Amino acid sequence: MAGGVGGAKFLRGLRAHLGITGGESADGAGASAAGDGTDDPGAGGHSITAVVNVGDDVWLHGLRITPDLDSCMYTLGDGIDRERGWGRADEGWRVKEELAAYGADPTWFGLGDRDTATHLIRSRMLRAGYPLSDVVAALCNRWRPGVRLLPVTDDRCETHVVVTDEGSGEQRAIHFQEWWVRHRAQVPTHSFVQVGAEQAVPAPGVVEAIEEADVVLIAPSNPVVSIGPVLSVPGIRGALRTTDAKIVGVSPIIAGAPVRGMADTCLSVIDVETSAQAVGRMYGARAESGLLDGWLVHTGDHADVPGVDVRAVPLLMTDDDATAEMARQALDLAAAGPAEESAR
Amino acid sequence: MAGGVGGAKFLRGLRAHLGITGGESADGAGASAAGDGTDDPGAGGHSITAVVNVGDDVWLHGLRITPDLDSCMYTLGDGIDRERGWGRADEGWRVKEELAAYGADPTWFGLGDRDTATHLIRSRMLRAGYPLSDVVAALCNRWRPGVRLLPVTDDRCETHVVVTDEGSGEQRAIHFQEWWVRHRAQVPTHSFVQVGAEQAVPAPGVVEAIEEADVVLIAPSNPVVSIGPVLSVPGIRGALRTTDAKIVGVSPIIAGAPVRGMADTCLSVIDVETSAQAVGRMYGARAESGLLDGWLVHTGDHADVPGVDVRAVPLLMTDDDATAEMARQALDLAAAGPAEESAR
Repeated sequence: MAGGVGGAKFLRGLRAHLGITGGESADGAGASAAGDGTDDPGAGGHSITAVVNVGDDVWLHGLRITPDLDSCMYTLGDGIDRERGWGRADEGWRVKEELAAYGADPTWFGLGDRDTATHLIRSRMLRAGYPLSDVVAALCNRWRPGVRLLPVTDDRCETHVVVTDEGSGEQRAIHFQEWWVRHRAQVPTHSFVQVGAEQAVPAPGVVEAIEEADVVLIAPSNPVVSIGPVLSVPGIRGALRTTDAKIVGVSPIIAGAPVRGMADTCLSVIDVETSAQAVGRMYGARAESGLLDGWLVHTGDHADVPGVDVRAVPLLMTDDDATAEMARQALDLAAAGPAEESAR
Repeated sequence: MAGGVGGAKFLRGLRAHLGITGGESADGAGASAAGDGTDDPGAGGHSITAVVNVGDDVWLHGLRITPDLDSCMYTLGDGIDRERGWGRADEGWRVKEELAAYGADPTWFGLGDRDTATHLIRSRMLRAGYPLSDVVAALCNRWRPGVRLLPVTDDRCETHVVVTDEGSGEQRAIHFQEWWVRHRAQVPTHSFVQVGAEQAVPAPGVVEAIEEADVVLIAPSNPVVSIGPVLSVPGIRGALRTTDAKIVGVSPIIAGAPVRGMADTCLSVIDVETSAQAVGRMYGARAESGLLDGWLVHTGDHADVPGVDVRAVPLLMTDDDATAEMARQALDLAAAGPAEESAR
């Protein structure tokens, strides 16, 4: 289960740990012989399926934009701008400049030129009737992520944010991207709403992936606006509750602060403390209709989550090796047995 | 009446001759005080309406592309790449590179990054239900061409070309852009077809512009694939036949060859000789259910077109001054009186 930037980095580490290759230039060893490059087992016989958040997805300028899926695809496909952390390397901004020169709203979204080509292909396929999951598979023919990337749902299930309009003083809902990118979350915020969640169904393969998994890992993504929207799709929580796989989460909160992004702001909106323990308790133990069997927190962090195996290990994803070690620890925690046998 | 590159240059000259200012940075003197920058009279009280070919228009990569309208808009708005003659100055090609990297067809179209922004706005407006003429007016709010640009029709009326498929040896119709850009017109070609012409109606203002004009000028555009598709829209020929305005055409053929483009190839497909006289005769005299009252040919060219006033003057559009003088001659020819009084 993954969001964007943090989820993508975690997937790179997991991929490295499992000996799976990937990336646009990957040779046949890791990329699928069938050409889809997404789900062939690596050297160790392992495969990874990522169930990715689509709550950030948005139509802008007539383009369907899927930020989290793209962060995963570009990061795993070696196309990401590593310095910026999102979008494409060697990116240009002429499209964005021109849209602004025309006065076309919105002007605050980071629409890169290379990125636009991806959006054009996606939008064209969606308009032709292909479901998003097929679009992702088609785009991954090029990027060969080495990981099977699945949108949690093919349906529109967007995160909107209820804020106080600074002009009128009244509450209104804006798209997550407007809140996150335009306002940098710096407006009076009341709640998050998943628009379309009631009607959404999991994309093909998502429930099966959860049911048939050996281990389910919750990436250190934003628990409120990345993992939350994934869980909001009807059928996902049920599959997580009933799968035979152990479920291990990785805390995105280290020493009381998010490593990246604005998880603290998101957590405060829903009255959850910004701590590894509070997020672990929010996810909750499977035994108590929550999600987790295990919870990985950063060295030095303390977390008491009833019914959940907690282990503290270094959680800074400084490079693929460090992240691979995190993934190894998460899998090891999953294999370690019931919570009561583990040191908490 | 205008096509793309040649029509746009001619419009610049006409605009200069009439003392109308234009361009993105034009001040209020020429640009419309109402903000649409398109149809205010110039210093001399004159205004220009251009009725522009849409036969080249095409959907590519989910974008509606209108090459002739854009050539006019960018040329009159000082946004054109002057060296290349089409597309935007300071253009980039990342979108095109990426589409090719995805293997998205077609790869042969010159889709620039800045240009893409224009296409995004157009496509979004069209999908929202706005007619093309409204889209052009909206885009011209930025470019302030100083000329009212009207698509000849808001309906889809595309030029397709019947060719012999080099693989199968059978005839098939391809879009004009594929014939022109991909094949450089170098395939066995049988005919041109205006797809949708039967159902098309002139865009709002087009017939009125012809009826109320003081003079109608046919720009030195490709007579077969630029002016021809304009004339194919039902209602246009009728308006030209009945308007009180004199109609003067400017030959795109000089010394037996097109100044630019592949008009010779197009003319040979319809069995018309590449000469100023043959094109003049193809247009024909209004008195004989043709179009022309006057026909401007290049110095040294000879043209005998029954019923039409022919005048030879320099027709090379080397700069705005030279083109302004051409426009002056065209207007002068229109004012010169009936054909029988003029030297042929």
